[in-house]
Amino acid sequence: MNKQWKLKSRPVGEPTLENWEFSEGDVPSINEGELLVKIHYVSLDPAMRGWLNDAKSYIEPVQIGDVMRAGTVGEVVESKNSHFAVGDFVVGHGGVQQYAVTDGKGIHKVDPNLAPLSTYLGVLGMPGMTGYFGLLKSGEPKSGETVVVSGAAGAVGGLVGQIAKIKGCRVVGIAGGEEKCKFLIDELGFDAAIDYKNENVKKALRQACPKGVDVFFDNVGGDILDAVLTQINFKARIVICGAISQYNNTTPVKGPSNYLSLLVNRARMEGIVVFDNIKEYPIAMKEIGGWIQSGEMKGKEHIVDGIETFPNTLMMLFKGENFGKLILKVGEDA
Amino acid sequence: MNKQWKLKSRPVGEPTLENWEFSEGDVPSINEGELLVKIHYVSLDPAMRGWLNDAKSYIEPVQIGDVMRAGTVGEVVESKNSHFAVGDFVVGHGGVQQYAVTDGKGIHKVDPNLAPLSTYLGVLGMPGMTGYFGLLKSGEPKSGETVVVSGAAGAVGGLVGQIAKIKGCRVVGIAGGEEKCKFLIDELGFDAAIDYKNENVKKALRQACPKGVDVFFDNVGGDILDAVLTQINFKARIVICGAISQYNNTTPVKGPSNYLSLLVNRARMEGIVVFDNIKEYPIAMKEIGGWIQSGEMKGKEHIVDGIETFPNTLMMLFKGENFGKLILKVGEDA
Repeated sequence: MNKQWKLKSRPVGEPTLENWEFSEGDVPSINEGELLVKIHYVSLDPAMRGWLNDAKSYIEPVQIGDVMRAGTVGEVVESKNSHFAVGDFVVGHGGVQQYAVTDGKGIHKVDPNLAPLSTYLGVLGMPGMTGYFGLLKSGEPKSGETVVVSGAAGAVGGLVGQIAKIKGCRVVGIAGGEEKCKFLIDELGFDAAIDYKNENVKKALRQACPKGVDVFFDNVGGDILDAVLTQINFKARIVICGAISQYNNTTPVKGPSNYLSLLVNRARMEGIVVFDNIKEYPIAMKEIGGWIQSGEMKGKEHIVDGIETFPNTLMMLFKGENFGKLILKVGEDA
Repeated sequence: MNKQWKLKSRPVGEPTLENWEFSEGDVPSINEGELLVKIHYVSLDPAMRGWLNDAKSYIEPVQIGDVMRAGTVGEVVESKNSHFAVGDFVVGHGGVQQYAVTDGKGIHKVDPNLAPLSTYLGVLGMPGMTGYFGLLKSGEPKSGETVVVSGAAGAVGGLVGQIAKIKGCRVVGIAGGEEKCKFLIDELGFDAAIDYKNENVKKALRQACPKGVDVFFDNVGGDILDAVLTQINFKARIVICGAISQYNNTTPVKGPSNYLSLLVNRARMEGIVVFDNIKEYPIAMKEIGGWIQSGEMKGKEHIVDGIETFPNTLMMLFKGENFGKLILKVGEDA
C-alpha cells in the first residue's frame, strides 16, 4: 500500500484538514529508467506553505490533486535506472507519501553510516545548505561582529547561529519560549537568546547586542524584522530567508515599516533561495559534517511518527511548536 | 541685513509656517580663520524633512532655534582664512540665510565660468553625486538592463535616468503628471515614463518593462516601491535613496508589503547616503561635467526667487510641484 497526502484545495490563511486529501493506493510500478523509493522520512519546512499558493515564485506551485511536494529520504527498493541500485539510500523531493517513483533527476545518494538518515533532511540537507550559504554568502559575517538570527530554534536558525559562533561572532537568537532560549545558550552555545513571546524584542536586542547588529538572518519577518531594523549597524547585512509570521496571512504581508534604517545605515537586505548553490552542496556537506563529528555543531531534530499526522504536524511549524528540524517519520529507520 | 529662517518647533506631519521663525539681523562679523559667505542659492531637498526629526539618522537633527541646514552656493565677501579669498565662489551647508560664517570645513571652491552657479547645487552638487554614486555603485546597471527610477523629474531622478541611458540601459521613469512624463521622454531621452497620478503603476510597469526590472532607484517609497517589487528580475538591485511619500507621515512608514519578492528573486535592497563618497566627488563632477558639455545630459532646475518664500517653496517638494532641481534664489546671479 502507498499512503499519500494530496493537495485538495488551496488554503486561504492557515491550511486546514479540508485542504488535504488522504489516499491509499497500490505501490506504483516503474518503467525503464525509473526507480522506486520507499520513503523513511519526510521533511516539513515553512517554505511548503508558499508552494500552496497559485503565485509566481522561485518554484512552481503544487497543483491541486498532486501529491504534496516535500523533501524526503528513503531507500531504493526497485530500480530500472543504472545509476541507482536496490539498497541505495537517496534524498530528493519524494513528496508526502510512502513510495515515490522517480527518473533519478534531482535525486542524490547518501550514506546512512556517516550520519543518521534523518540528518540528510536537517543539518546535512536543505536547511543545512540554506543556513550555510545564506549566512556565509549573503550575511558575510566577520569575526567579532554581532549576528542575530530569528527562528533560532528552528532547523535553519540553529545551524546559522552555530556557524556564526564558529566564525567568531557574537550570536543572539530569537525564539519563542523559555525552553528554546535555554537550549540555544546551553546546548548550541549562543551568547544570548531573546524570548519573543515574553520579552520586548527591541529592548532585549539593545541589551543583547551592545555593539549593534551587523548581520540579521531572518526566518520570521513581521514585527521581529522591524525590531531588528532599529538596531542595525553601518553596512549591516539582512538575509531574508523567510517570513514564517506572514505565510498564513489573509491580509497583505506586513512590510518592514523601519526599512529606511537601510538608508540611514547604508545597509542591505537580500533574499536567498537554497537551490542557487546546488553545485556547491558537497563543500557545505563536508564542512558541516566535520563540525558535527568534532562536536562543534549539533543538529536537533523533532521527529513525529506517522504519515497520517501530516496536516497537523505541518501546522506545528506555524504555531512555533517544533523544536529543531521538523521531520515526519513514515517508514523504518535505516 | 541678514535674513534667516530658523527652526522654531519640530513638525508633526507636514512642516507648516508655525514651525519656522523668520528673522532679520546684522550681517555677522568674522573671527580669525573664518570667512563670510554671501549666499546666492539655497538647495531645497527632500532629505531636509528628515533633519527636522529628533531621531538618530545619518546626520544630526537640526536643533530648535538653529538656522535651517541647507546646501548653498555663494561668494566669499570677507575672509580671515588663508584658504579662501574674497571673490571666491564656494559651496557648503550655509543654511537658509543670506550670509553664513564658516571656518571653511566642508566648504569647496567652485568655478562659475565652468557652469552656472546654481548647477553646483544640482547636477554638479549633492543631487548629482547622490544619483551618480547611488546608481553606479549600488544599482550596478549593465548595458541592456532595464532601470526604473521614481521621482524621475526630480533632481536626483532625472540624473539617474540619464546616466542609465548613457550606460546603455532601457530607462523608465515614474513621475507625477503628463507634463513631467513628456519631459522625461522628449528632453531627457527616457524610453518610457509612467504618470503615477493617472496610471495604474503596476500595469504600466508591465508594459514599459517587458523584460522586467533589473535596477530600481527609489526616491519615493510607499505604493510605488511595492508596485515595482512585483516586477523585479532575478538578482535585481533596489537602491533606497529616499522615500518622499512617507516623510510627512504621522502614522508609521508604509513598509514594502512585497519585500518577499527579494527572496523569490534573490534580489537586494540597499540604502545609500551621498556623503560616503565624498573623496570621489571630483571624479563624478568631472564625468558629469563632460556629459553636460557634450549635451548628453541636461540638468533641469526649478528656481524660486526670494528667501521669504522658503517655508512654502520647501513644500513644493512634498506636493510634487517642483520640476527638476528645486533651488531658492536668495542673492544675485554670479
